[in-house]
Amino acid sequence: MPHSPVDPVNLTADLVRCASVTPEEGGALTLLEGVLSEAGFACTRIDRGGVCNLFARWGDKGATRAFGFNGHTDVVPVGDAEAWSVPPFGAVQKDGWLWGRGATDMKSGVAAFVAAAVDFVRTTPPEGAVIITITGDEEGDAVDGTVAILDWMEREGEAMRVCLVGEPTCPERLGDMIKIGRRGSLSAWFTLTGVQGHAAYPHRAKNPLPAMARLMDRLASHELDQGTEHFDASTLAVVTIDTGNPATNVIPATCRATVNLRFNDAHDSASLIDWLQGELDRVAQEFEVAGEMTVKVSGESFITPPGELSDLVARAVEAETGRVPELSTTGGTSDARFVKSHCPVVEFGLVGQNMHQVDERAEVAQIHALKAIYGRILRDYFA
Amino acid sequence: MPHSPVDPVNLTADLVRCASVTPEEGGALTLLEGVLSEAGFACTRIDRGGVCNLFARWGDKGATRAFGFNGHTDVVPVGDAEAWSVPPFGAVQKDGWLWGRGATDMKSGVAAFVAAAVDFVRTTPPEGAVIITITGDEEGDAVDGTVAILDWMEREGEAMRVCLVGEPTCPERLGDMIKIGRRGSLSAWFTLTGVQGHAAYPHRAKNPLPAMARLMDRLASHELDQGTEHFDASTLAVVTIDTGNPATNVIPATCRATVNLRFNDAHDSASLIDWLQGELDRVAQEFEVAGEMTVKVSGESFITPPGELSDLVARAVEAETGRVPELSTTGGTSDARFVKSHCPVVEFGLVGQNMHQVDERAEVAQIHALKAIYGRILRDYFA
Repeated sequence: MPHSPVDPVNLTADLVRCASVTPEEGGALTLLEGVLSEAGFACTRIDRGGVCNLFARWGDKGATRAFGFNGHTDVVPVGDAEAWSVPPFGAVQKDGWLWGRGATDMKSGVAAFVAAAVDFVRTTPPEGAVIITITGDEEGDAVDGTVAILDWMEREGEAMRVCLVGEPTCPERLGDMIKIGRRGSLSAWFTLTGVQGHAAYPHRAKNPLPAMARLMDRLASHELDQGTEHFDASTLAVVTIDTGNPATNVIPATCRATVNLRFNDAHDSASLIDWLQGELDRVAQEFEVAGEMTVKVSGESFITPPGELSDLVARAVEAETGRVPELSTTGGTSDARFVKSHCPVVEFGLVGQNMHQVDERAEVAQIHALKAIYGRILRDYFA
Repeated sequence: MPHSPVDPVNLTADLVRCASVTPEEGGALTLLEGVLSEAGFACTRIDRGGVCNLFARWGDKGATRAFGFNGHTDVVPVGDAEAWSVPPFGAVQKDGWLWGRGATDMKSGVAAFVAAAVDFVRTTPPEGAVIITITGDEEGDAVDGTVAILDWMEREGEAMRVCLVGEPTCPERLGDMIKIGRRGSLSAWFTLTGVQGHAAYPHRAKNPLPAMARLMDRLASHELDQGTEHFDASTLAVVTIDTGNPATNVIPATCRATVNLRFNDAHDSASLIDWLQGELDRVAQEFEVAGEMTVKVSGESFITPPGELSDLVARAVEAETGRVPELSTTGGTSDARFVKSHCPVVEFGLVGQNMHQVDERAEVAQIHALKAIYGRILRDYFA
């Protein structure tokens, strides 16, 4: 008896009912492992550092044609539960929408590619492999998530030849945007230290605050670039400046500030750190204060240049939605920043407007359409 | 039987033993009232708002020759009592110093002018009046201290024709500085408010931090003046900038900062507030953020131009110490800022190096010398 197609909306609803707030697995990966195993996928749980992850392959290990999907089942916290119109993990369906935390980001995306993959291998078993990688740690630190899966794959000789990350990518309508890269991100924490003193005698003190004001003004008003072929202009946001001095008659010894940079392929983190350090040194010298900087790099910028993979996805999107998707590099980080070292990667998924918000919800029709797009991509890839 | 001279060191020691931390009277004014009454001063306690003050006059009310002294018996807290080498209110004498909280600021000054005044009226009763005004609220808010005495004097028809404030004024050696004025002081609290947003999409937010950095840089680097005939250059100190945003991926909506200005007679608070408001408006417009400012004026600048009173004091200082005092307008605020509306006022007292510190102490020989200077000033004034 032939299997009936997997309903991606029901699967999304089942996943939403798993309260998988990072790093809780919440039953989500176990559920998916069951669905995939039943369809003949070889499943491996790759758990590291308290995080649960799932690797599933249909077909031969090391196949030269191997299409991969990547996604995550963990979700951000519900926030103010009282503010929700529905139970956040209730998976209520009404008015054509499926409501709940993770409905958009990105349990519907996971459900759509799992449903598409299961139907595909059952109905038209391909020459090659279909690989599914799902992490429970994308919204958190992401150190034991997709990275752990990729580490394991490398050790085991497992390989995706191309990969599609199913994150929400569309700003307005399903089909309007594919992401082919992401900007890099880094944060820098500055501390300037002078000499405390009485506000009436500023010449006896060394006030670090005017120095910090000058530094932040210079950093914020500096044009990093005007954008590159595939990227918007890089940005720097001053996110906090803090002193904590309640006394108006005291010049404080120390001031702290933090900046966050999102940068394109005109830079790498090393060149930006050099620039930041240079500006810090310059202002420290000008104002005769001591400067310190700590930096955390969240990810380098990367790009999968328009070509075979983006064409494949764009054709399927246009066939199913009638829209020609923009190839974009906007937005924050995603696990594509890890996959890009493994194989060409692009991202395509739902409209992401209400992700992370109260009353997060996905349009039921979009979930079905997304499964159809993913299914067409698989058929075209193996055709 | 003639009275023996009042020993200003013993009187200082007795005052130090009164734990008169603002606003506690601690027995200090009662002690002085006893000494002055016994010498024929008409004493009045002027207590207002929980603060004790003392007015004492020898001679006729409304006399056209009336020399006034002003001082305070309240002291700042001891701070870390464990850090003191001596009991802070023990008035220990050793190595030629009298140790204790208030020994310098300014129980020795009060003791010296009370001792000088008592000896003077007993030995050479003058034609005119000697007036002593002592507050218990100079180190605190100073709203019910010298101001309360002056208010009462005006109502009662009491008047000092000139006044000497006995605050510590000498930076290095007794006799090296008389203060003939003080800079004004004001603080301004700024709030800039923009629109919160994600650090990855700065164009969708309005970040108030670069605006605050620009504003503080402009204010701090602006030259208010280069000094005036009797004053050093006015100063502006940025004393705090605060945001309190722990999230590197969030652009905050609000940033606050505070500046403190010490200004000379090239300005008044109104002109400075206009300037600050103008710079705030300018930056708010440039960065499309909302700006708010709150201002507190602690005092306008004032000057008793060099002349009869400063000459009188300087001659006495030179005669007793061999030093020609500098006429200065440096330093923080004092109650002279209130007295200046009442009559010409200058300040002269001890070396102030260890005031407000742990192990505050006054040199015994300096206290005796200070009494001698004050005594000579009285003799010369009434000569």
